Amino acid sequence: MAGPLPTLQFVARPGILDLSWGHPAGDALPVTAWLEATERTLTIDGSRALAYGYAAGPAALREWLAARIGAAEPRPCDPAGVFVTAGASHALEILAAELMRRDDVVIVDAPTYHLALRILADAGVSLVHAPTDSVGLEPAATAALVAELRAAGRTVEFLYLVPTFANPTGASLPDDRRAALVEVARHLGLTIIEDDTYREFAYDGPAPPSLWGLADEGTVIRIGSFAKAVAPGLRLGWLNASNDIVDRLGRRGYLDSGGGVNHLVAMTMAHFGESGAFDRHLAVVRRRYADQRDALVGALPPSLPVAAPAGGWFLWVALPTEVSATPLLAEAERHGVSFVAGSRFYIDGRGEDHIRLSFSMLRADELTEAARRLAAALSATIRAAP
Amino acid sequence: MAGPLPTLQFVARPGILDLSWGHPAGDALPVTAWLEATERTLTIDGSRALAYGYAAGPAALREWLAARIGAAEPRPCDPAGVFVTAGASHALEILAAELMRRDDVVIVDAPTYHLALRILADAGVSLVHAPTDSVGLEPAATAALVAELRAAGRTVEFLYLVPTFANPTGASLPDDRRAALVEVARHLGLTIIEDDTYREFAYDGPAPPSLWGLADEGTVIRIGSFAKAVAPGLRLGWLNASNDIVDRLGRRGYLDSGGGVNHLVAMTMAHFGESGAFDRHLAVVRRRYADQRDALVGALPPSLPVAAPAGGWFLWVALPTEVSATPLLAEAERHGVSFVAGSRFYIDGRGEDHIRLSFSMLRADELTEAARRLAAALSATIRAAP
Repeated sequence: MAGPLPTLQFVARPGILDLSWGHPAGDALPVTAWLEATERTLTIDGSRALAYGYAAGPAALREWLAARIGAAEPRPCDPAGVFVTAGASHALEILAAELMRRDDVVIVDAPTYHLALRILADAGVSLVHAPTDSVGLEPAATAALVAELRAAGRTVEFLYLVPTFANPTGASLPDDRRAALVEVARHLGLTIIEDDTYREFAYDGPAPPSLWGLADEGTVIRIGSFAKAVAPGLRLGWLNASNDIVDRLGRRGYLDSGGGVNHLVAMTMAHFGESGAFDRHLAVVRRRYADQRDALVGALPPSLPVAAPAGGWFLWVALPTEVSATPLLAEAERHGVSFVAGSRFYIDGRGEDHIRLSFSMLRADELTEAARRLAAALSATIRAAP
Repeated sequence: MAGPLPTLQFVARPGILDLSWGHPAGDALPVTAWLEATERTLTIDGSRALAYGYAAGPAALREWLAARIGAAEPRPCDPAGVFVTAGASHALEILAAELMRRDDVVIVDAPTYHLALRILADAGVSLVHAPTDSVGLEPAATAALVAELRAAGRTVEFLYLVPTFANPTGASLPDDRRAALVEVARHLGLTIIEDDTYREFAYDGPAPPSLWGLADEGTVIRIGSFAKAVAPGLRLGWLNASNDIVDRLGRRGYLDSGGGVNHLVAMTMAHFGESGAFDRHLAVVRRRYADQRDALVGALPPSLPVAAPAGGWFLWVALPTEVSATPLLAEAERHGVSFVAGSRFYIDGRGEDHIRLSFSMLRADELTEAARRLAAALSATIRAAP
């Protein structure tokens, strides 16, 4: 390998204001509060925080999560139905390893989180996009698609989506579609995997109820994460599932061998939550990310109209009809700004008519300048069009 | 679920001195030193310790590990060939997910670590025991077995063993067999997965060189762990492999999404290592576990003769011919002592003639009393024999 080894996933590119990363701002990470929680954990729990943990996660974190979830959702949350993961992406990896078989079909939203598509593809499953319209996934058409695939002999047991403050669109599935989708899934015996990573970043009022909250036991597996809400380097998240699924995950050999997937960090998160540090941190970063959203939305040119999403970290911007995302990206980088082309969020080549802009990592003044550069790149691309 | 949720994997059973757990002693875990390393990490590295980490692990830990490994082994270690894992069991899980296919044959030592067998089985591979004799795996006979399986159309690409201070035997593969096994693997294009979890627990002189150290690049993937040497709750380990394998592991979707598997803990371990805390801790616990070994070996009755293993955490005890492990276990529990029956470490029903006793978790006085109870249970079993 040439050059020094990296420490972080993020790659700084001098001269580029990079709107492509769904990463938190470095100075928004709770360095001092996490150290305090670690001190409390190692003082109060001592060696219990360093021992082999229970496969599904330590009681304190599962109970704190269940109480918090039960207070926010229309149905209670049994702590025995909470499984602690090493982040949302690990949740998807372990669900795929335990529950999916090679060549099964998994239905995925369109567009949807591009790296979730990679994780599912690693498990060898076939991905098929759900039918969608301008407000999102269409439940009745999805039911018809599943029936058609099953009639053709395919195994179709799971549907993956990010229904709340979605990656990449920032949009949330409307309430009537939530109810309809849950009913379709229950009727078909289809399990919804609800990636709920962005729920805590609601800027204009409460987040919609989760699909998990609207469903019967067993219809929805909900994935939550502390990566955005606290810090990605913790590698900690959770999932809500039936007690049976939680038991199955905990019986995998590597958990039987290694214990809980991230025991010390999970023990520390229980203190971070119970002490109120989690809510204090969220209140601060929620205001900050709302301000960054407003800065970017306000600075975009009239040629890139976008409605401010009510939550999350992303703007999904429709391009003028004469411009495609990939050539615009090349021009944008020459202008010192970057983003992700919309086609990355589909598996079928669609999406060149959109770009995803992340407002989580840059300051408001940088976002304003990034929007100015993007406008210039767009103008240059339109001028150069045949 | 009935009763309170657990926090730990360990289940205390009142009245039982339990020699079945391969867990560290609670009061041997470095609570204060780990807190100091965390303070240093969050002070010096700040938000970089909480951000998305690099997929293969942070530079500081990979470089510290590579320097340490290079100093101990007969060949240098390239930091780019070190991949940070969430413990040894996670290493095996990710290797199986990335490199093995359902129905491949994996050769495994006999006896060998029972939960490694579970992890491999989760990947859907077929396990076949290597031929062994009284000192361990037989390289030439293993080569013949692989050739035979391949001639029958099977895919055989991997061999798993714990060659140093093994679980469950405590034994190390002799030097001449190490050289022969590495040569066999190179010749056959077979990759050895060397589980080196117990290397740091050498009590009577230096540990033998690793198979990885004796081999060419690409012949051996070595798995190391901080679970025994520092603390299991950290969920941190590493593997040594070719740079190509390290790159493949890092490109899995869930690492591309989540970054390094346990970034904050890995960053903290780099400080724990570089500050000397790791070596200070090892020096203390190595003496302690040697003393516990001596206490248990010295207290076993003449009817259970065992040579003290030169390292590791386990005694592998041959039973008198008229006694089997499983009925002895039932009698032992009535006498207030427990262990693991030898048959757990085979997939073919062998092993009822041995038991595994772990001396890691109990104090010397408890180990002495456990041996007394075991002797009483053995006598009772022999008296009851037809």
